[in-house]
Amino acid sequence: MSNVPDVEQLKLEENHNSGTENAPAPVDEDVVDPWTVTSTSDAGIDYDKLIKRFGCSHIDAALIERLEKVAGKPVHHLIRRGIFFSHRDLHTLLAAVETGKKFYLYTGRGPSSESMHLGHLVPFIVTKWLQEAFDVPLVIQLTDDEKTLWKDLTVEQSMRMARENAKDIIAIGFDPSKTFIFSNLEFMGQCPQFYQNIIRIQKCVTFNQVKGIFGFGDSDVIGKIGFPAAQAAPAFSTTFPFIFGVDKLPVLIPCAIDQDPYFRMTRDVSPRLGFPKPALIHSSFFPALQGARTKMSASDTNSAVFLTDTAKQIKTKINKHAFSGGRPTLEEHRELGGNTDIDVSFQLLRFFLEDDAELERIRVAYGKGELLSGEIKKIAIDTLQPIVAEHQNRRKEVTDEVLNLFLTPRKLNYDFSVNVPGDSANGPGAAGKKKGKDKKAPKQE
Amino acid sequence: MSNVPDVEQLKLEENHNSGTENAPAPVDEDVVDPWTVTSTSDAGIDYDKLIKRFGCSHIDAALIERLEKVAGKPVHHLIRRGIFFSHRDLHTLLAAVETGKKFYLYTGRGPSSESMHLGHLVPFIVTKWLQEAFDVPLVIQLTDDEKTLWKDLTVEQSMRMARENAKDIIAIGFDPSKTFIFSNLEFMGQCPQFYQNIIRIQKCVTFNQVKGIFGFGDSDVIGKIGFPAAQAAPAFSTTFPFIFGVDKLPVLIPCAIDQDPYFRMTRDVSPRLGFPKPALIHSSFFPALQGARTKMSASDTNSAVFLTDTAKQIKTKINKHAFSGGRPTLEEHRELGGNTDIDVSFQLLRFFLEDDAELERIRVAYGKGELLSGEIKKIAIDTLQPIVAEHQNRRKEVTDEVLNLFLTPRKLNYDFSVNVPGDSANGPGAAGKKKGKDKKAPKQE
Repeated sequence: MSNVPDVEQLKLEENHNSGTENAPAPVDEDVVDPWTVTSTSDAGIDYDKLIKRFGCSHIDAALIERLEKVAGKPVHHLIRRGIFFSHRDLHTLLAAVETGKKFYLYTGRGPSSESMHLGHLVPFIVTKWLQEAFDVPLVIQLTDDEKTLWKDLTVEQSMRMARENAKDIIAIGFDPSKTFIFSNLEFMGQCPQFYQNIIRIQKCVTFNQVKGIFGFGDSDVIGKIGFPAAQAAPAFSTTFPFIFGVDKLPVLIPCAIDQDPYFRMTRDVSPRLGFPKPALIHSSFFPALQGARTKMSASDTNSAVFLTDTAKQIKTKINKHAFSGGRPTLEEHRELGGNTDIDVSFQLLRFFLEDDAELERIRVAYGKGELLSGEIKKIAIDTLQPIVAEHQNRRKEVTDEVLNLFLTPRKLNYDFSVNVPGDSANGPGAAGKKKGKDKKAPKQE
Repeated sequence: MSNVPDVEQLKLEENHNSGTENAPAPVDEDVVDPWTVTSTSDAGIDYDKLIKRFGCSHIDAALIERLEKVAGKPVHHLIRRGIFFSHRDLHTLLAAVETGKKFYLYTGRGPSSESMHLGHLVPFIVTKWLQEAFDVPLVIQLTDDEKTLWKDLTVEQSMRMARENAKDIIAIGFDPSKTFIFSNLEFMGQCPQFYQNIIRIQKCVTFNQVKGIFGFGDSDVIGKIGFPAAQAAPAFSTTFPFIFGVDKLPVLIPCAIDQDPYFRMTRDVSPRLGFPKPALIHSSFFPALQGARTKMSASDTNSAVFLTDTAKQIKTKINKHAFSGGRPTLEEHRELGGNTDIDVSFQLLRFFLEDDAELERIRVAYGKGELLSGEIKKIAIDTLQPIVAEHQNRRKEVTDEVLNLFLTPRKLNYDFSVNVPGDSANGPGAAGKKKGKDKKAPKQE
């Protein structure tokens, strides 16, 4: 790549910590990185501070208005209620869409457990809304390689979890003609362009830089040090030649805010490799049942409602573990009211109760002390039980055959430029690409 | 991998520099690493010192005798003359072979130039001899990813050079039914087990360790830091399921001594992943025409005889550039004799003149001053011209079709255990593996 400047010229764009020290955050500060999310406050992470620290932007009323105008419909309640609270370059992306430019969606999941919990659904629910609103291709990365490197998991265990998690993702209701799901440990061996883009990215980023962005140190294994390039590569459309040919398309990445460091790095590298910078929208964290100081954890079964929980388990967990914003005594509660900012049952309703008027009624009643802790817990239980049960029903329909269809590199139901260069015609999507080309040829009837 | 100990437990086995400092070698010491080979002496690298520094072993008379006994024929003159001078665990490998154990050969090349020179042939010539002597499978890695990371080369340029170099390697005379050649940037996308083994290796090695072994520093790009795992992976037979099924076979790696650091690292990792440690034999360096202080360089066309050189170019290069061990005046030369240790023409003959008696006659005559510098140059020219011309003729026969055959992942003409685990049956060699399985099934006729 003759257009790649020296590695030392790479300046990280945003005002994050670019120092070379691997110092922990001050004790009174929230910790938010791809591996740890903790807050010192019962109200959870201070997202305003985080936006300032990360250098991203608020999703404000003007942006929501523009999004609704371009999408032609009201935004999803997870955006409307500020659960997706921050973005990078969404205005730029929408401006491009307004001029007829195509884009695609990219999101992902690190499969560290067999079973996903409710919080894991959040980015996927909004991704599905975005895909339907804009009718664009979607790629979903399962970072089973990351989980092998970070956790006490073998390659085989991580790959099995990737397949199990993919079934849950499919059960959300994605369209197989528009969605490609892939596990890194499998897809790397199916498409040379994936590794080739990883090498291009790894040539642009120094150890000093990943030290500054991710806090890696000298005793970290070399797999961790190289991994950020594997999460960056799907933000480059040429990683999927069977979908996009050689088009260099813009991408929009919906993700939880803790994944932002990967895409700060990606956005620095993109222009050097001739790609548009990815746009992002960030979600806040789904609180653990024990309260918003941490996010739900798949490794603590009592911290979250899992997609495999029975109605009875959901009831027990919420009644027993859901952190309450209510007062110690009935008298105090009736007099002073509950605190909806820290009440986990109310927070669960913010995520999963679609009816705005009903949510507002609950908020006011709980705040006034008219609604008791046990009562708001019951509303949360009644809301979540059918959502989880319906998910379980849909998941039963995700057979191995359906799963393998989503996991197969193939052309999606979209046409992109298909000028296939000589050698990459051997890639797995070669047939699809050629078919695409034929379609674009002028008809001779 | 529950059998993988903590990364910090990894102790590097040999007595090489395991410090964390990235200090250059003292000025009076030879520099030998995968990227630099220089000596302060006209006689070239002090290989005795190097063996001590690297912690490998001399190939002595007893080992050569044993090798000949197991092979059932005299060793190649490149081994007999001490050009392959050092080894690791060759005794162990031969002991295994004596008990009927199978092994395979692995060697490689970093394709940093379109045209290879004579020195590049040396490991391949001995590899070919070993393959024929033991009748074993051979895998040849072209590290086009490494060249992209280290040199000012794009992915596309490195991949093109890999194909050109593969043609030269094939022209040496390898058997396509027994040899698989692969470029990393292409093969990574053809076989998931390659990346899966890389992740397993990258989980076992820390930045501190690659700093100690390779001298990497904080401003090195993350691609370099992760790359050693890509050179280690082919030493694990499961990287090639289409050849070896799931067998964990021993491997013998013939290579130039500067590649040893990669395999020191590999030997540390092997037992933790359940593989035998690779055995190695190391060649000394082919001297540059300008003298043995450095090795031939593909980037200095006057430093080497290239496989694309015409007879006339060979003549001119040797006459004009080959460092002479002769005396300044005819009188002195006749009286004191030439120095064969530093005379490049004589060194070229050591590598490429097969006739031992003739080589000894030349050595004695030159040493006595009976043979003049011009005369020994003429012998070198007359020896090399037909070797290069014949190579060029054989290379012309290496069509793209022949090349693609060598580069295709496929079963070779050997049978190995083929217990294919569930998921990996999707790999490129799945058909071949199943065929192998059928073969082993008891016949029901």
